Amino acid sequence: MKKFTSINDVENLNELIALSEKVKQAPFDFKSIGRNKTIGLLFFNSSLRTRLSTQKAATNLGMTVMVMNINNDGWSLELEDGTRMNADTQEHIKEAAGVISQYCDVIGVRSFASLKDRIGDYEDEIINKFIKYTTVPVISLESAILHPLQSLADVITINENKTNNKTKVVLTWAPHPKALPQAVANSFVEWVRETEMELIITNPKGFDLATRFTDGIKVMHDQDIALKEADFVYAKNWSSYDDYGRIGIEFDDWTITEEKMKLTNNGKFMHCLPVRRNVVVSDEVIDSTNSLVLEQANNRTYAAQTVLLKMLQDEK
Amino acid sequence: MKKFTSINDVENLNELIALSEKVKQAPFDFKSIGRNKTIGLLFFNSSLRTRLSTQKAATNLGMTVMVMNINNDGWSLELEDGTRMNADTQEHIKEAAGVISQYCDVIGVRSFASLKDRIGDYEDEIINKFIKYTTVPVISLESAILHPLQSLADVITINENKTNNKTKVVLTWAPHPKALPQAVANSFVEWVRETEMELIITNPKGFDLATRFTDGIKVMHDQDIALKEADFVYAKNWSSYDDYGRIGIEFDDWTITEEKMKLTNNGKFMHCLPVRRNVVVSDEVIDSTNSLVLEQANNRTYAAQTVLLKMLQDEK
Amino acid sequence: MKKFTSINDVENLNELIALSEKVKQAPFDFKSIGRNKTIGLLFFNSSLRTRLSTQKAATNLGMTVMVMNINNDGWSLELEDGTRMNADTQEHIKEAAGVISQYCDVIGVRSFASLKDRIGDYEDEIINKFIKYTTVPVISLESAILHPLQSLADVITINENKTNNKTKVVLTWAPHPKALPQAVANSFVEWVRETEMELIITNPKGFDLATRFTDGIKVMHDQDIALKEADFVYAKNWSSYDDYGRIGIEFDDWTITEEKMKLTNNGKFMHCLPVRRNVVVSDEVIDSTNSLVLEQANNRTYAAQTVLLKMLQDEK
Repeated sequence: MKKFTSINDVENLNELIALSEKVKQAPFDFKSIGRNKTIGLLFFNSSLRTRLSTQKAATNLGMTVMVMNINNDGWSLELEDGTRMNADTQEHIKEAAGVISQYCDVIGVRSFASLKDRIGDYEDEIINKFIKYTTVPVISLESAILHPLQSLADVITINENKTNNKTKVVLTWAPHPKALPQAVANSFVEWVRETEMELIITNPKGFDLATRFTDGIKVMHDQDIALKEADFVYAKNWSSYDDYGRIGIEFDDWTITEEKMKLTNNGKFMHCLPVRRNVVVSDEVIDSTNSLVLEQANNRTYAAQTVLLKMLQDEK
Repeated sequence: MKKFTSINDVENLNELIALSEKVKQAPFDFKSIGRNKTIGLLFFNSSLRTRLSTQKAATNLGMTVMVMNINNDGWSLELEDGTRMNADTQEHIKEAAGVISQYCDVIGVRSFASLKDRIGDYEDEIINKFIKYTTVPVISLESAILHPLQSLADVITINENKTNNKTKVVLTWAPHPKALPQAVANSFVEWVRETEMELIITNPKGFDLATRFTDGIKVMHDQDIALKEADFVYAKNWSSYDDYGRIGIEFDDWTITEEKMKLTNNGKFMHCLPVRRNVVVSDEVIDSTNSLVLEQANNRTYAAQTVLLKMLQDEK
Repeated sequence: MKKFTSINDVENLNELIALSEKVKQAPFDFKSIGRNKTIGLLFFNSSLRTRLSTQKAATNLGMTVMVMNINNDGWSLELEDGTRMNADTQEHIKEAAGVISQYCDVIGVRSFASLKDRIGDYEDEIINKFIKYTTVPVISLESAILHPLQSLADVITINENKTNNKTKVVLTWAPHPKALPQAVANSFVEWVRETEMELIITNPKGFDLATRFTDGIKVMHDQDIALKEADFVYAKNWSSYDDYGRIGIEFDDWTITEEKMKLTNNGKFMHCLPVRRNVVVSDEVIDSTNSLVLEQANNRTYAAQTVLLKMLQDEK
């Protein structure tokens, strides 16, 4: 694997999941493969789970980890080619990426959407320029439009918890006071549609995800109908794609409550975290035994470790 | 040891001190016990000694260390239960603690007092919620009201430097331009009172520590009388407990000077650092051969290593 | 080597370069020497290359690395002796340095020039006080007036790329919108003058470097004449030494372009990075096959590893 930014970088999802099971069962069994290998984790944005689970994953493999909050610790990066850099940006991404790839065997990059410039965001400029200018594998720690390590952890978690062959997964929009990216939702759709499971998306009108991700997937604007007989309810807020970055403040009845979970087939509750309690989901639901949020977070370590292991194996 | 937040978590102080002597003599002799173990150090506040000495201690034991400035690197945490989180906080401490304890074998937490809400501070909410919501041992890196790693280092240092059986230790308030927590002072009292040594506290009127810590300890409001025949003078500023958070700016004659040290029994000078020179203590005193401040800081490594060693041993 | 702050700390430059070649050829061959050794990297300022390459170098040697953004993570430091510290500074550098040297076997310090107080900057107060108050070797990660790890990497890079015995090196001032220190330029001069190569400096009038560095070196104010027959063109901006901190905004025709490179002897282009494209140097030049900027950055790892190796060897 030369990069991990999307499901499209995965040759065989079932094989990847099978590898993750091995990793989870014996996380320290691969410790020699990362000897004298270094991963650089570059954060343009905040991170708790990704920061810690990816560090954990890399050290489980015997790698050295270097973490950088790149804008604070280093220099502000120029992304455009051909610019006369006489304003605020101090270093071109071409040099930054070129240099870092000399110090690291794998580079992880987290960089959120601006939510102001839809075209720019959906070109996923930062991660793609890192890929363009590095000589080593790049792993997305959440880009402007996708969060593949989260999605792999989510698919692993569903796999561990599903009980029947005809599994219905519902991705539901949920309220949130601030504008959030569509990355987790886009990515979840990309990954789950590659499985055998039935996927339905439900969100208020005006909050449909980009059709490049949802084409062929059923999108419903009535949450109650969508939730019926769901085995897994994946809640997540995202701001509008059509009216780019708009917050759906008026849809506060989309919070996932016990009453709504009663519509499901004793459905499991999922969320990528961090989550706003009693806004996205009620305390009762997230604290119930049907809540998988901690299992999802735990599987972040094994998702990252599996991807890194694959990268190191393929390099050999 | 399932947690280390106070002297009350220590079963046998003499045994702990004896273990610290072994650790200090051969710090790298325990390097296999931490193999494949990870400590997460979570800082809500600034730290130099604690940050570096605890990292050092953990790596001496062969552990992997992950450091996070939690509010800057991650998300701002909600502490209250039942809140509708539609304002500034982004993640509930219940999820944060639950998640981090899946990535770490031990969690260290530093979180200072607000000095605005005495009841909240003295419930020591942040560290206690971490303990409540984690499944792994928690170690205090200074909480709102206690600093047990500092106190253990202090007791080790006194032990190494005392020359007679009847040792008199004086904890004295000292001036400071900013409002500081009572944590170091509370904690010092908690620990020293468990030893055989005589402990006297001296501070200006209005600056008595909370009686839950000082009950049964002699508190004197005349510094000169208190210092008489002291073998150890532990200076530290704290803001008022009674008039919570008030600074004692008018008591600038409480600075520890050479003249005051002459009242003592050739007393050793102690302070936890960082220290404001010529405000808390004069240059002459802190630079004298009787100053133990660097020895105290050095013993922070062995204090932390001893506690971590005990936690890892008890887990086996 | 007890410190590494300047060429003056190097006993034999040729030996150091020879050692760096061994290190670069087999970077992991020295991994036992750093066992149970810790380096503390203290950053008062931003850093990308230095931060990552020095971490990499230390882990290549088997050392443990502790990184601190000292003003943000720790306490603001007082530098003056005898001050009554009742204002903004929280800890005296004497305690900070004394304490950190108990936790670390080597200390790295990065601290830029103020560009406001020339006398203070040129006394290089911060790094020198660290040296004064520590008991362990100190390595400069760029001080107010020198950047020796950069210069060593630069000399290594020139050495790898020179083709004839009579090599001409030109250090040229280049435009920049912000006031920058003279450290890289001062240091480059200090190091290159110790080699057999011819060194010429060219800069606009009013931008001569301090004579303590340039005495005996040819300084030309006509860039075109200086560049003639150059084998290596080292571009770098610096603010004025004479009119301390002044930016040379009016000299925007000093940008290194293809046309100017045509004056040289098919010269190689060098810069320490980060670089402002199309201000310091045109895209064509930095993107050409004659550009050595990535090689310089890569050699930062081996420069740091060589210096650390020497320090650890000398300690034995």
